Amino acid sequence: MNIEYTPIGHVRSPHDSPADVSHDEVAETTGEIVLDDDYEPGLDGIDGFSHVVVFAHLDDVEEYRLTARPPHVEDLEVGVFATRSPHRPNPLAQTVVELLDRDGTTLHVEGLDLVDGTPVLDVKPHTVPIEDTENVSVGWLEDR
Amino acid sequence: MNIEYTPIGHVRSPHDSPADVSHDEVAETTGEIVLDDDYEPGLDGIDGFSHVVVFAHLDDVEEYRLTARPPHVEDLEVGVFATRSPHRPNPLAQTVVELLDRDGTTLHVEGLDLVDGTPVLDVKPHTVPIEDTENVSVGWLEDR
Repeated sequence: MNIEYTPIGHVRSPHDSPADVSHDEVAETTGEIVLDDDYEPGLDGIDGFSHVVVFAHLDDVEEYRLTARPPHVEDLEVGVFATRSPHRPNPLAQTVVELLDRDGTTLHVEGLDLVDGTPVLDVKPHTVPIEDTENVSVGWLEDR
Repeated sequence: MNIEYTPIGHVRSPHDSPADVSHDEVAETTGEIVLDDDYEPGLDGIDGFSHVVVFAHLDDVEEYRLTARPPHVEDLEVGVFATRSPHRPNPLAQTVVELLDRDGTTLHVEGLDLVDGTPVLDVKPHTVPIEDTENVSVGWLEDR
């Protein structure tokens, strides 16, 4: 069974390629999520959210690997589903960004780790699903 | 441009239809995320995470609406991208679940709001992207 999605818009970013996306600079990176004009009514009410979740298709990923070596961690290889590596069976990215402003179908956002032109599949409000963060453990990430 | 994804597995849930998914019971609902056998190496290292994010395709959604009426909120209609309504242009669900246990390619999880048989597109570790929850605002949800 194949599933077909159609992009609802695209990313405008200062990053032209994944190599430009430095982990340290992502938090300050500003850019835009630009939806197609037809979707403007779908954004009504999003302005009240400080953060939104952007779902994007990583269209420059050509193949996947079942394991990944997380950046900045030496000698560690883990399963791809235990990482956010882009080289996944379905190269779907989920990014939480701060919503600075909206101008029609253009969302001005901060904290962008996506490259320019990336197709956007969905936008959802960020609702902090786990409030009790004390009871969250983050596996191999804890050693970082 | 169309984007094609192939499911990596499916959901096993006590919920047979969306009408069975009661908001109040979701937190206690247990079920399984069952990946296809070939993906087992991709789950290496996921066991250390208390929560994982499941990306699923809502295959029983036949059409979308640009606005939605959130449940349990009277007289409110907002844009679909300001809600988690399933009736979205690309019916992609994102659910954070607690990872109770893993048995090969079967993840035993709690907090499941997906129905039985839902195709799974991706699994990622939950890494609490926004630590400073005091500075998060949640729009129309704040009035609930």
